[in-house]
Amino acid sequence: MMTLITADISNIWGILSLPDLLALEKEIFDAHKQLQTHTGRGGDRLGWMTLPDSITREARADLREAAARIAADAEYLVVLGDVGAQAAVRLMATQAKPRLLFFDGGFSSRAQRNLEARLQDRPFAVVVIAGSDMTTEQAVSLRALKLLLERRYGEDGAKKRIYVVTDPSRGTLRKLAASEGYAAFSLPADAPGNFGAVSAGGLLPMAVAGIDPEAVLSGASDARAQLDIRSFENPAWLYAAARTLLARKGFRAEFLGIWEPDTAALGRWWQALFAAAEGKSGHGMATAPLQYPRDLHTVGQLLQDGPRTIVETTLRFAPPSQRATIEMDWQDAGGVDALGGKTLDAVGEQAAIAAIEAHADGGVPIITLECGAPVAQTLGELFYFFQLSCALSGYLAGLNPFATPGADLYELQLGKRCGMLPR
Amino acid sequence: MMTLITADISNIWGILSLPDLLALEKEIFDAHKQLQTHTGRGGDRLGWMTLPDSITREARADLREAAARIAADAEYLVVLGDVGAQAAVRLMATQAKPRLLFFDGGFSSRAQRNLEARLQDRPFAVVVIAGSDMTTEQAVSLRALKLLLERRYGEDGAKKRIYVVTDPSRGTLRKLAASEGYAAFSLPADAPGNFGAVSAGGLLPMAVAGIDPEAVLSGASDARAQLDIRSFENPAWLYAAARTLLARKGFRAEFLGIWEPDTAALGRWWQALFAAAEGKSGHGMATAPLQYPRDLHTVGQLLQDGPRTIVETTLRFAPPSQRATIEMDWQDAGGVDALGGKTLDAVGEQAAIAAIEAHADGGVPIITLECGAPVAQTLGELFYFFQLSCALSGYLAGLNPFATPGADLYELQLGKRCGMLPR
Repeated sequence: MMTLITADISNIWGILSLPDLLALEKEIFDAHKQLQTHTGRGGDRLGWMTLPDSITREARADLREAAARIAADAEYLVVLGDVGAQAAVRLMATQAKPRLLFFDGGFSSRAQRNLEARLQDRPFAVVVIAGSDMTTEQAVSLRALKLLLERRYGEDGAKKRIYVVTDPSRGTLRKLAASEGYAAFSLPADAPGNFGAVSAGGLLPMAVAGIDPEAVLSGASDARAQLDIRSFENPAWLYAAARTLLARKGFRAEFLGIWEPDTAALGRWWQALFAAAEGKSGHGMATAPLQYPRDLHTVGQLLQDGPRTIVETTLRFAPPSQRATIEMDWQDAGGVDALGGKTLDAVGEQAAIAAIEAHADGGVPIITLECGAPVAQTLGELFYFFQLSCALSGYLAGLNPFATPGADLYELQLGKRCGMLPR
Repeated sequence: MMTLITADISNIWGILSLPDLLALEKEIFDAHKQLQTHTGRGGDRLGWMTLPDSITREARADLREAAARIAADAEYLVVLGDVGAQAAVRLMATQAKPRLLFFDGGFSSRAQRNLEARLQDRPFAVVVIAGSDMTTEQAVSLRALKLLLERRYGEDGAKKRIYVVTDPSRGTLRKLAASEGYAAFSLPADAPGNFGAVSAGGLLPMAVAGIDPEAVLSGASDARAQLDIRSFENPAWLYAAARTLLARKGFRAEFLGIWEPDTAALGRWWQALFAAAEGKSGHGMATAPLQYPRDLHTVGQLLQDGPRTIVETTLRFAPPSQRATIEMDWQDAGGVDALGGKTLDAVGEQAAIAAIEAHADGGVPIITLECGAPVAQTLGELFYFFQLSCALSGYLAGLNPFATPGADLYELQLGKRCGMLPR
């Protein structure tokens, strides 16, 4: 079976050996089996695994309808929550309006005022995406936007412009939606937040931005089918195994270099996914996304010659069907005449090889991921690929990848300090 | 003497001891002295140290004039290079037009096409910022934009819309500017690129965005004066010493959590500065910027309970003079009624304390930096503070912080693969 995403680990030999990898085969088989049979840690939080195929036709129609309503009503959609949607929108939004504002203003008066200035005299709507609990920031931002909407459109008008995606039955946000009559969509109760990129929480904002949810779901669904391979032909096995073995050898950081601009949100999604899943009991790697080739000129120095405890993972998209050619110039402006006539993508391919050659020479273990062109289908595949790789990595480390008790301590502490009731 | 930026290292005790710190006093004194007397490694690349006060009145007037010309001519200014300017513009651009497009499309046909679509029917100008050598990507992007301008405005019209900031005498870009007659500004020949945030390279784009270069320079100049303190009252000493001692104890990563949105570019500037300066001979920490409180809910898990080899540095801005208050609501939408009547900033302060309490409980060494409100003056201070801290850190590690021979290997390799002459 051909897989959609490929993982090339040929640049880790020397640091790892083939016997190292083969010795892990039984462990990763067991990890994969535990996931599929719900017998591992956090086995009640595996809703994300079937998500690509479990969203009903009716739920999809509801999402499309809501997206159309927002598009008709609003010039701006303020999104509180979900970096997965942001990853998709930044890379491939197909329409200019409504414009999506992913707001994470935290407790900044400056950011709040800038947002309000931007919304001045512009029709807008709000979508809040949260599991059973909102963060304090989300609750505070929602309140401010709700009051702004009420003053502008009256209480009833405001209610029609707030959309909620949350736990099907529990939590403050569900209760609020019920009492206020907000349009409400469901996140699976059994999927942790970071694993919800292809849930309604991700798909609603994407649909508003003109990204077809069916394409994203179809990519995720294909990945789900193809990543069921139970051997090292499975790129998720290769990726999880390589990074696990490197972590066991003492590697303590993983940089993901993405060869495409406008992927900062995708990188952040990846960073958050792995950091939250693996950062437990003294385990986990410091994850940090980079953009290539931009960051090769600066952070590349650290990779090339810094401490030998950093894993470099690179991600390349296939070139799009329409490619741009580097033109010849009458005079050689900038000393790059040798590139005249080549497509940008052909030079990009050489650049990726050049970076691998340079870093491999420096003794850096490099995992190379390749996927399709940067379109919705590919992003669906990538979401699923990384989620599965992350779950496998977590199980290989003996952890529950789906709980974040450590991250909750901050929120608890804040609640105590401010006299808030536990939500 | 009161310093503008404070560094609080009270949350590293337990991992480091006061005697550890005091034992470093002589080393850091020597490092500082080598910087000031140009007797350390890379002593010929210290132009950044005097930059805040060495840009002539005439050069400043030229910058202002160029910025005014761009504003009159263009709706968009495409900026090739300089993340320092991007940091300032994202945080505090004061005018909507011209809009700045920081383009780092690399070799992506998709990004190049999107840029061209955006510039369609819109008057635009281009500024290229590079030391003696452009990167290959800059040269390729400049060529495409130059041809686009020539087709639209003719050769002479194009020449008037391309601005260059580069080495005063050497390199392709300087040569090109001379032969084509582009308006050209100078980067100090003796300052490395990453240390040029308050050079003309940073200041020209800032000025176009309505940020007063004088305010940025004045902040940097104040910092220069105040960070001359030769004791641990100097926050740059404290910051450099704490991270150096932690690195010596085996810490391998440093996260910078910035308590303010729209600071991704500032974070990237910091990350690049330290990674490029320190990532040498097996030394250096994996640097990664975060945005707080957003990332506390995900990456916070890794900090709280992951490997004890991560340093957490946090940066807080003082609240602005105009603050937003969290309103009361008739019904408690979101369970945050306890916050009603407080300013966002007051809650933000509690959140910052909550995060420190939680992470300190988890045994994380935390360095807390505080600076002024997010205005141009403060950013000038921060640029200088981080540059000085970085130079001190590099000297403490016995490195030349101002050279990046490792990062250049990638570019060399790419040149070889594509048959380009060394530029």
